[in-house]
Formats: sequence, C-alpha cells, structure tokens
Amino acid sequence: MAPRYAPSLRSRLAPFLLFLQIGFIVIYAFCTEIENNVQKDRTTFSNFYPEFQDVNVMVILGFGFLCTFLVRYGFSGTGFNLLVAVMATQLAIILNGIESWYYRGKIRLDLKSLVVAEMCASSALIAIGTVVGKTNPVHLILIALLEVSGFVLNQWLLQTLLKVRLLNSIMLLHIFGAFFGLTLTWILYRRGSEQQFEKETFDRKTGLFSMLGAVFLWMFWPSFNAVLVDDRIPGRKLGAVCNTYLALAVSAVTAAAVSVLTSPKGKLNPIHMQSCILAGGVAVGVSISAVHQPWQAMTIGFTAAVVSTIGFRYLKIHMLLAFQCHDTCAVLSTYGLPGLLGWLAHLILQLIDSDNHTMAIRFAVFHISALLITITLSLLTGIITGLLLKWNFWRPPQDNKCFDDQAFWEFPHLVVRK
Amino acid sequence: MAPRYAPSLRSRLAPFLLFLQIGFIVIYAFCTEIENNVQKDRTTFSNFYPEFQDVNVMVILGFGFLCTFLVRYGFSGTGFNLLVAVMATQLAIILNGIESWYYRGKIRLDLKSLVVAEMCASSALIAIGTVVGKTNPVHLILIALLEVSGFVLNQWLLQTLLKVRLLNSIMLLHIFGAFFGLTLTWILYRRGSEQQFEKETFDRKTGLFSMLGAVFLWMFWPSFNAVLVDDRIPGRKLGAVCNTYLALAVSAVTAAAVSVLTSPKGKLNPIHMQSCILAGGVAVGVSISAVHQPWQAMTIGFTAAVVSTIGFRYLKIHMLLAFQCHDTCAVLSTYGLPGLLGWLAHLILQLIDSDNHTMAIRFAVFHISALLITITLSLLTGIITGLLLKWNFWRPPQDNKCFDDQAFWEFPHLVVRK
Amino acid sequence: MAPRYAPSLRSRLAPFLLFLQIGFIVIYAFCTEIENNVQKDRTTFSNFYPEFQDVNVMVILGFGFLCTFLVRYGFSGTGFNLLVAVMATQLAIILNGIESWYYRGKIRLDLKSLVVAEMCASSALIAIGTVVGKTNPVHLILIALLEVSGFVLNQWLLQTLLKVRLLNSIMLLHIFGAFFGLTLTWILYRRGSEQQFEKETFDRKTGLFSMLGAVFLWMFWPSFNAVLVDDRIPGRKLGAVCNTYLALAVSAVTAAAVSVLTSPKGKLNPIHMQSCILAGGVAVGVSISAVHQPWQAMTIGFTAAVVSTIGFRYLKIHMLLAFQCHDTCAVLSTYGLPGLLGWLAHLILQLIDSDNHTMAIRFAVFHISALLITITLSLLTGIITGLLLKWNFWRPPQDNKCFDDQAFWEFPHLVVRK
Repeated sequence: MAPRYAPSLRSRLAPFLLFLQIGFIVIYAFCTEIENNVQKDRTTFSNFYPEFQDVNVMVILGFGFLCTFLVRYGFSGTGFNLLVAVMATQLAIILNGIESWYYRGKIRLDLKSLVVAEMCASSALIAIGTVVGKTNPVHLILIALLEVSGFVLNQWLLQTLLKVRLLNSIMLLHIFGAFFGLTLTWILYRRGSEQQFEKETFDRKTGLFSMLGAVFLWMFWPSFNAVLVDDRIPGRKLGAVCNTYLALAVSAVTAAAVSVLTSPKGKLNPIHMQSCILAGGVAVGVSISAVHQPWQAMTIGFTAAVVSTIGFRYLKIHMLLAFQCHDTCAVLSTYGLPGLLGWLAHLILQLIDSDNHTMAIRFAVFHISALLITITLSLLTGIITGLLLKWNFWRPPQDNKCFDDQAFWEFPHLVVRK
Repeated sequence: MAPRYAPSLRSRLAPFLLFLQIGFIVIYAFCTEIENNVQKDRTTFSNFYPEFQDVNVMVILGFGFLCTFLVRYGFSGTGFNLLVAVMATQLAIILNGIESWYYRGKIRLDLKSLVVAEMCASSALIAIGTVVGKTNPVHLILIALLEVSGFVLNQWLLQTLLKVRLLNSIMLLHIFGAFFGLTLTWILYRRGSEQQFEKETFDRKTGLFSMLGAVFLWMFWPSFNAVLVDDRIPGRKLGAVCNTYLALAVSAVTAAAVSVLTSPKGKLNPIHMQSCILAGGVAVGVSISAVHQPWQAMTIGFTAAVVSTIGFRYLKIHMLLAFQCHDTCAVLSTYGLPGLLGWLAHLILQLIDSDNHTMAIRFAVFHISALLITITLSLLTGIITGLLLKWNFWRPPQDNKCFDDQAFWEFPHLVVRK
Repeated sequence: MAPRYAPSLRSRLAPFLLFLQIGFIVIYAFCTEIENNVQKDRTTFSNFYPEFQDVNVMVILGFGFLCTFLVRYGFSGTGFNLLVAVMATQLAIILNGIESWYYRGKIRLDLKSLVVAEMCASSALIAIGTVVGKTNPVHLILIALLEVSGFVLNQWLLQTLLKVRLLNSIMLLHIFGAFFGLTLTWILYRRGSEQQFEKETFDRKTGLFSMLGAVFLWMFWPSFNAVLVDDRIPGRKLGAVCNTYLALAVSAVTAAAVSVLTSPKGKLNPIHMQSCILAGGVAVGVSISAVHQPWQAMTIGFTAAVVSTIGFRYLKIHMLLAFQCHDTCAVLSTYGLPGLLGWLAHLILQLIDSDNHTMAIRFAVFHISALLITITLSLLTGIITGLLLKWNFWRPPQDNKCFDDQAFWEFPHLVVRK
C-alpha cells in the first residue's frame, strides 16, 4: 500500500514552520520598530499606500493564481504561494534592514520596506515556478529562504561594489529568480520527465483561474515598475506608469499574434496568453530608468513578447530534452529572456543617450558586470539549494503524486456528483 | 471532414495584429511624448492613480469576466476582451489626441488621457457584447477600431457643435456602444438563431466567474463615474462617488426583486443578478453632472433596475424573434435602456433646477440634439461595420462552432478525468 | 410532488425587498444630503478613497466569495451576500446618522459614513456565516437588519455610557457578529443536523473561488484595520497597516502548521487555510489602538491562528453535537475566538503600558464592561431574531434543499455536457 500515499509531512512541515515563525517573532521583537519620525506623514502614507496594495495583490493573488493552471494543483498553487510569499517577505525585511540595524540598532518598518521585501519575495516566487508540482511545501520554503538571501546579497554587492541604485538592482529580480530556478530544476531533474507527468496539464476551468491571476499581474504591473521610482522629479513616476502600460498593451497583442502564427492549426495557446502578455512588463521594468519615450517602451514590449512566445513554444521542450531542465511554468521564457532583453535595452538606450564617450564605456562596463555578478550568484545559490534539496530527509513526493493536490490537502469524500 | 474544424485564423489574425501593432508603434514614435510639464505633479499623480487603476480593473477584468458566463467560452471571453481593450485603447489615445497633435505637434500622454482612452475602449467592449460568440477575434478587433473611431468622432461633434462638456459627452458611451452593437448584430443575423445555439448557455461553475466580473464592475463603478469629475469644486467628486454607490445598491436590491417577481417559479435568475445590478451605475453615470441629492440617484437606480430587469426578461427574446436582433449579452437592457433613462433623468433634473425659461429650453434642445446625433452616428457606423464584416474574407466561425473556445484555442487532450 | 420543490419565494422576497427599498429611498429623500462643507476636500477625498474601496472589496467580494466553498451554493453565497451587504449598509447609514439628524436635521453622507456603514454590514455578514445554506434570502435580510440595529445600538451604548472611542467600539463587530450568529443557529437548530447535510461539503473547483475570497480578505485586512485610525498623529496609520500585515503573515504560517499538526494524515485542510489565516487580522483589529510594536502584533497573530485552527478542528463538531449549534462557516473559531483574544490582548497591553494604578483599574473595568455589554446585547438580539425566524411564514427551505442553489436560482437545462 505504501506507494499509494504521499509521504506524510506532519513531522517535517509543522515543526519547520513553527520553528521559523517563532524565530522570526523573536528577531522582530529585538530588532524592529515602526518608523515614527515621518515628516508630512499624511501625504507620504496615502501617496504610497495604493501602490503598496497593488504590489501586494500581485504577489499574493497574481503569482498565486497564475500557478493554478495545472488541472489538479489549484490549492497548492495558491496556498503554498501564500506561505512562501509571507515567509520570504518576513526574511527579506530582516535582511534588507541589516545595515540599518548595524548602524542604528533597529530596523525601521515602513511601507517602502514592506514593498521592497515583497519584491524580493516575488523573486523567490518566480524561482519556484520552475519546480512547482514536483516539490513539497518544505522544499518550497527552503528554496524561498535561500533564494531571498542570495538575492539580497546580490543587491548588496551591486550597491556596494558598483554603486547601482536600488531601483535598478531590484529590477534584476526577474533574471536572478529565473536563473536560480533553472539551475535548481536542472539539479532536481527526475528521470522520466521527458514524458509529461499524468497530471501536468491544464483544462478549461482551472485555466480560467490562471487567467485571473495573469490579468491581475497584467493590470497592476505599472504599479510594480513605478512604486520605487522617485516621485520628487516631476513626471518620472507618470512616465514609468504610462510606459509600462503601453509595453504591456503591445505585449498582449504581439503574444497573441505570435502564438497564432506558430501554431499549426492557427489557434491561440491559453498558456501563452497568460504568461507572454507579461513579457513587456518584465522587460520595461528592468530598463525602467532608461526608457523615456513611449515608442521605446512599446518596441521593448514588442520584442519581449516575440522572444517570450517563441521561447515558450520551442525552447521549453528543448530545455527539457536537451538539458534535462524541466521548467514547469516556463520561467525562462516568461521572466528570464524578457529580463535579459530589458537589461540589453537599458544598455543600448543609455549608450545612445550619453554624450560623453568615457562615461558611456564606464556605464557599459558597470552594467555588464552587474549582469555577470547577478547570474553567477544566482547559479551558485541555485546549485547550493539544489544539492540541499536532493537530501531525501525532506520527503519529496513520488512521481505519481506530482502535480496533485491530494498529496498535501485533505479533501472530503465527495458524495454529491452530478 | 472540413466542417468539423473551425477555419484557421493563422493567415488572418496574426498578420492583422502584427500590422496594426507595428503601425501603432510607428505612430506613437512620431506623435507622442510623456507629459512632463506637470505642476504639483506629486499630488496630481497620486490623487489620480488609484481611480485610474479602478477603471483599468473594470475594463480588463470586469468586462472580460462578465462575458465568461457562456459555458464553453471563458477563454475567448477574457482573452479577446483583453486584446480588444488594448487595441481600442491604443487607437483612442491617438484619436483623442489629434487636436493636440495638430496644434502642438505632439500628443501628450498622462493618466487622464489613458483613462479617457480606456473609457472609449469600454464603449467598444459594450458593443462587442452583442456579437460575442458568433464572431472571430479578427471581427472583434475590426469592430472595436471602427466603434472607437465613431465614438471619438461623435464626442468631437458634440464638443464642437453643441459645446457639450467632456464629462457629459463621454458618458454617452453606454448609449453609443449599445446601439452600435444592436445594429451590428441585426446585420450579422444568422438564420436559425431563433433556436438557441447548442452552447449558448451557462452553468454553475462558469457562472461564478461571470459573477466575479460583475462584482468587480459593481464595486468600482463609483470610480468610473467619478474619475473625470472636476475635483476643484469641493464635494463634487465625493457626491459622484456616494450617489453612484447608492444607485448601485438600490439597483442590486431592485434587480433581485424584479427578477423573482417575473419568474414563474419565484426564483432569481443568475444572469439578471450579474447584469441588471449594474443598471444604476450606468444611468447615474449618464446623468452624473445633474444628480445632486442621494434620493435622486437612488430613484434613478431603482427605475433603471426595473427597466433593465424587465427588458432582460421579455425584451431580449422579443428582439430576437421580431427584429432578428440576436443580442448575446442583452446589451440593450444592460446598457442601452439604463443609458437612455439616465439621459432622460439628466434632462428632467436640469429642467427642474433651472430658474430661467430660456436657458431651460436651450438646454433641452441641446440635450435632445446630443442624443439624436449620438444615436444617428452609432447606427451609421454600426451599419458600415456590419456590412464590412459580412465579407467572408474574415472567415466567420460556422454555426456549430459558435460559442465554443475550441474554435480558437489549443487545448491539450485531457488524460486525467475524475 | 410537493416536497421535491423548494417553496416559491415570489410572494415573500419580492414584496419584502421592494417595500424595504422604497422605504429607504423615502427616508433618504427626507433625511440625507451629501457633505459639501469639506475643507481641503481634495486631499481628504483622495487620501480616503483607496482605503474605502479596499473595504468595499472586502465586504462585497471577500465575504461573498469566502462563502462559495459549499459545493452547490456558489451563487447564493455571492448573490445573497451582495443583497445583504447593500441592505445592511443602507440601514447602517441611517442608524449611524440618527444623532446628527436629531441635532442638525440632516444626515451628511461622506466616505467615512459609508465606510463605517460597510463595517457594520460586515458584522451582519459574519453573523450570517453561521446559518448560511439553511435559510432563504428573506431570512438573511431580516437577520442583517436586526443584527445591524443591535450592533449600532451596542456602539451607541458603549460610546455614551463608557466613552469608548469609535475605533475601539466598531472593532467589536467580530465578537458581536459571532455571538449573535451562534445564538441564532442554536435557536434555528434543525433536528438531524448531526449527520452532515448531503450537499454540505466542498470540492476542488468551488474551493478555489473560496480561496479567492479569502485571499482578498487577507490582502485588504490592513485597510480594514487602518481606515478609521486617525491620521493626524504621524505614524499611527502606518503602524496599523504594518502591524496588521505582520499579524496576517504570521497567522498564515501558523494556521498551516497547526492544520498539518492536527491532521492524522499530515495534510493541510483547505478550509483552515481560508478561514484561519485571517485570525491575526481579526485579533489585531480588536486591539489595534494598543498594539505599538511589530512583535506584539506578531505574537497576537500567532496565538490567534493557533486558537482559531484548533477551534476549527475540534470545537466546530463539539458545538454541533454538544450544544446543537450548527455553525456552517465556523464563525466561532474564525471571528469569535480571535476577537476575544484581541480583546484580551488590548486589556493586557494597556495595563502594561499604563503607569498609573488607578487609571489601569479604571480602564480594566471599562474594558470588561464593554465586553459584557456587547455579548449580552448580541445574545439578546440573537434570541429575538431567532424566535422571529422560527415563524413558518418565511418559508424556510426543506432539509433536502439546504445548501443548494437550485432552491433559489433558475438554471437552464444543460444540454452540453462533456
């Protein structure tokens, strides 16, 4: 009978969660306080709060429901996403505040620190997209904690060594998350994945939940890209919102066109319409501080959607067969490639804009170094995480329990069926 | 075998989308820039942004999921809605900016121009409600582009000839969209529509997605009506929000009551509870600049819900049988009749308010002319669009592929069924 | 044939709704006006509006979709929730304004009065959670009207007799609603409820809608707790948001841990993940004016989630078997116990904070009296409401029509089944 049931997580998940959570409470008790020295607090708070909530909706609802496309994995998709997001956010607040704790003795919490922490958490959520369905919640939380630590370290390195601004370094989250996730899924490769898992598919109903998540991400992506843009320079924040909006609009149209074009029967692929419409948001986000004209954003959105949709159609299966890289949510084409494209666009736009040769070369060197550091660090932490997770102590689900809610969730015996 | 498959859209949809999108990018490159001369930008931006996002959620998510009630049309409902909305918005930004382009050489983008463009797009989305399920995405985009052009032309005429203010002219979007759509569906009538199409029905699960869309529209309708209200006059914007909220509340209750009252078995109709609860928002929106007291808004909401629910129950089938007008989403009773009612309420309230006889008559003449121009133009553009779409070149779906996602979307062969 | 059909509501629901609604319109016509004497209206409005919308989303969408977990009760869950919410809000606006009507002749409507009214409505929605599925809409609206009247009376008593501030008295809504509901369901107990009703269960698909509602409540709970916090003291509102966010984060993790720990098979219970993750928001809400440090909020969130999850697992069935209290949505463990815990936390934190012995004792006496008054009044109004509803005139659904949409909603005969 043994193989029929997924291994019980009672002795792993519960103590693990309680231990971490109590640990966080203790750390917060000694190291944090609410920021109360706010000048003109009233305006600041109400200016910032709606954008904070938009990002919150994206992280909790958007990413959570985006994962529900798998036919039998809806509860795990949303439920574990919530768990991972709150764990990663709590950790990221602490890690981002280490410097302030070192100098001032306390980490001050305000809306900005929450938003930055949620953006770090979204990096972990992207990474998790590669292994969704083949891991248990203990794995997911371990991944999230290590990924967030690696990402915060990466940011600190970029800011300290290369003087990269917060806005630019944090937007590398897409690239960091994607490459971290790819390394991870390569190490955790299960033999036999070339044939699709029995339940690794989507259907009409679950697909609509996933569409819901995608639509929320699509709608609030302008907030995600604009929330950290300095609003003291007039028009900068407005520009970030308008440019992201236009890039997303172009992405949606282009993703649909390319999806139909590459389909033998001339049909749209629902999963493309959920992932690749976001490519413009990712790419413009990475290059947000260099994009000043609407057409630049639109061109970036166009290219990103083309790359992303073609990547999804052909690269995903290639990665699986040639590199044994089983990327459940096609994170490479949804976040990795558009992220790289955005990085490239940033470089090109900045080079064109600069009058001074020396400055341009200096910028290019710094920009390329930032990418290299990010990718190296993401691969490294990905390898470490992967090796840690290969340990059987964490009780990975058997192959036939992959992509199945039943392994982790109690369902009643359904009496009513119609 | 031929009739079993829907005609492939590969050679139609993909080039059409790519051509339009590249065209838009080129136009944007030469004609647009981000507004950067904003005084007190910080306040303006953060005052406006939450309302912009509410309208965005309504247009993308609300209208999109409202269409998912059809049992097998969820992906098309949401996916095509997104495509149409972004296409129409991009076009509307250009068309609305022609004047500014003419005088200043550039169209300046800011949040207000995005909101106005999205409202024009919502007019197109209303029009599309009449033909949903019986058309392909190429049709839908053509409809949207022509509808938006007609609507912007209509606004320009009203503002130029009759000096109607933007707030009043844009709120005619419900009337314009509904009559445009009705003309269209009358021209595109398919023989045999008197019997319901096989898949033109709803069920328990898809109905809940549609409820979700309706609830989002219901919740954010106060933002839709208030977003363009001038906030320099104290209390005006607050009034618009409170009045719309109360009208919607009354609509919800009244729609439920009338739905039960007109049902032979004394049951509620789920579709009424999704469409007719919005009637108050539509009607108060059209008359927003004349409604000053809560009870006025509530009375308008009450009447609108009665008219809308009775229209849905009896008029929809009558339109089909007597006028060969197959109105899938009952756009006439959801937007058309409440819109006309709101127009009438505006007239009556303004006449009561005005002390001066001459001014009152002058207003009445202008108000009636505005309606006549709007309806004439919507019928005209509707006829033109309809005749264009009758052309078989666009490959309309066969009757047995109507209301079916399978005609346009790739689904995997489902292995797991329980 | 008779018992096969649910009793028709045509002669009950429709006149009842129309009578109430017309009555409300008449009252609003004579007693209300829009607040127009707003100083610095522009800032106030746009500072407040996003939070108002968050609360609106929670009340209409969050509570509505939270109830959809029942396998065949989705339309009733969301549809009746909307009806009840708008009825209760309309009544609460009037009741809350009686004093102002008495002194000034008019009830002035602004965003704050709408928010306060929606919070009173949410108290009624919590109460209804206990009887959902076993009542018809006429019952639900009666319950809502009586509950809101009782709650507003309670608030008035607390504010008049004990000088409790609005923020503290309104947050007792969770406790009032829960105990009102429990009394009600105890009086309305149906023999045979010990065995689960045939359709009183959830499944995979409906469960995701319910997850959606839960996620919306979770995300916007910080707005719910912070919206009435005075923003003239710098940092106070920020503190409320951050503390609620952290408490919710801790709740989510703890609820998952305890759910796994108490499950024989070591699995998560989906319903726990939907209800108990909110416990932290409830508890911190009740104690919001005394919580100043993040770790306090987190500890409260931790304890609340433990209590709530254990209560859900063991207390719900105990209440049913031992006390004949059939609590459909486990309102006791979701709102009642966390509410009491928050009350206790408020007491303890305030006692620790106060330097003065006399003041501390004075506060404790007042605080305990407030709780006693609230519970007494909720039990009393609950008993009155229950006795009124036992009257067969209201046509309660038969046992075999409980938890079934079909009793109240028209569905088409489904032709397409796959």
